[in-house]
Amino acid sequence: MKESFEDKKYAPVGVFDSGVGGLTVAREIMRQLPRENIIYFGDTARVPYGSKSKETIIRYSRQIIHFLESMGVKAIVVACNTASAFALEEIRPEMKMPIIGVVKPGAKVAAETTGNGRIGVIGTEGTVGSRIYTEMIHRHNPGAVVLGKACPLFVPLVEEGWLKDSVTIEVARRYLAFFQESDIDTLILGCTHYPLLRSVIRDIMGDTVNLVNPAYETAQGLKRLLKEHQIANDGKKELFAEYQFYVSDAAEKFKNFANSILPCEIKEAQLIHIEE
Amino acid sequence: MKESFEDKKYAPVGVFDSGVGGLTVAREIMRQLPRENIIYFGDTARVPYGSKSKETIIRYSRQIIHFLESMGVKAIVVACNTASAFALEEIRPEMKMPIIGVVKPGAKVAAETTGNGRIGVIGTEGTVGSRIYTEMIHRHNPGAVVLGKACPLFVPLVEEGWLKDSVTIEVARRYLAFFQESDIDTLILGCTHYPLLRSVIRDIMGDTVNLVNPAYETAQGLKRLLKEHQIANDGKKELFAEYQFYVSDAAEKFKNFANSILPCEIKEAQLIHIEE
Repeated sequence: MKESFEDKKYAPVGVFDSGVGGLTVAREIMRQLPRENIIYFGDTARVPYGSKSKETIIRYSRQIIHFLESMGVKAIVVACNTASAFALEEIRPEMKMPIIGVVKPGAKVAAETTGNGRIGVIGTEGTVGSRIYTEMIHRHNPGAVVLGKACPLFVPLVEEGWLKDSVTIEVARRYLAFFQESDIDTLILGCTHYPLLRSVIRDIMGDTVNLVNPAYETAQGLKRLLKEHQIANDGKKELFAEYQFYVSDAAEKFKNFANSILPCEIKEAQLIHIEE
Repeated sequence: MKESFEDKKYAPVGVFDSGVGGLTVAREIMRQLPRENIIYFGDTARVPYGSKSKETIIRYSRQIIHFLESMGVKAIVVACNTASAFALEEIRPEMKMPIIGVVKPGAKVAAETTGNGRIGVIGTEGTVGSRIYTEMIHRHNPGAVVLGKACPLFVPLVEEGWLKDSVTIEVARRYLAFFQESDIDTLILGCTHYPLLRSVIRDIMGDTVNLVNPAYETAQGLKRLLKEHQIANDGKKELFAEYQFYVSDAAEKFKNFANSILPCEIKEAQLIHIEE
């Protein structure tokens, strides 16, 4: 028994997202758990997930988890808010290994740190429409008032690279005007692309609103989970953890984006046909 | 032999797109060929196509054509610029029935009507990067100068419904500034969503630049193609042609969008799993 734990410790963590957004989660895991090896899958052939239905997202997530299992991962991080919202609770009972999403850790910290019990959530249509953040926040803080607003143009603006652009500021002003006079003291960045717009959102919301980045909380949650299951890589310290990247399309473009936001240089992203 | 032509005349035309954009082509077919029945497929589970690779688009297009063939269509319209650019020439030799895309008809009319031989093309990253419009224009007008510009935010802006919005105008100004001092007299709207931004584009480009809408030309081309193959529905005139809609996801949302731009009311869009 001990033997298999020893083996598992050195197995990689599987991380998946609809595309590049989940790299902000992978980045936090690299920072906070520098010994863990990672296999990342980005579903770039079917990106984005945010506007698609629950049934479709569950089907896609199952295919990806199947692939990650076949690669011998020891735990899975669903680094996509939409997939966490739609698929995680459905799939968890089918799983033998630990699995963690980005919604619960972000919701928990928001529920516990809000002063006035008024929390905003921004995300894709799918995530906001699912009301999953409201549900998760109420588990920890039943009296909290949760206000959700979908911001569908944020992802394409980030992918266009217009991170601090006047157009992006105007779009953000429009979307975030929803929270005017709502008196929220906490805003959850409920989509993995949004931390890349953090400074624009910070300028509009002001310093009195606490911005919650679920990527950070998810890495913390993963650390606890690996420890609980006694599968954290606390054995012999390697100089560098190993990171592997797989995508379902446009590997070169993925690699360039990844190299612009990760702390390390990616040499290659491998293409696989996830449908098969 | 005559018998089978008679049968085929009443068969529907298959039209497909990555999502809702191709409805602007379906709308033109409804207007110009009011007797033709249509089966439309929108690949809403995998939309958008514009940022994906050639190999992926060919695979998706093959699956959809297979589905449309199984529905007994007599001809196929590829109502998506990216799929026309990447997949049409590849797939045509495999086909038994006539197939037409949106690129060739648009390129032909631009090549023939330009006065000064300077033509602009706007479209998705995939369409513009493929240089397919340049190639097709040169078949009809080898001396023409063709300038292409990808406009990746136009599709999400249309899908957000911001058709005549100040943000859309600013984004369009930025993208179209590319054509300043280029002296083009013709601009091809090389993505099926773009005709919905026609008035914004018209205001920025001015009256001296002729805007080519490939949807219009494609319906004209389809009319000629059906006649050539003697399969046009010129038989007994039905009061109303029959239109059927299929999607790979989010049928209700598709229906609402379709009803906002089509001349007729859609009762239902049916969901199918195109991967299987």
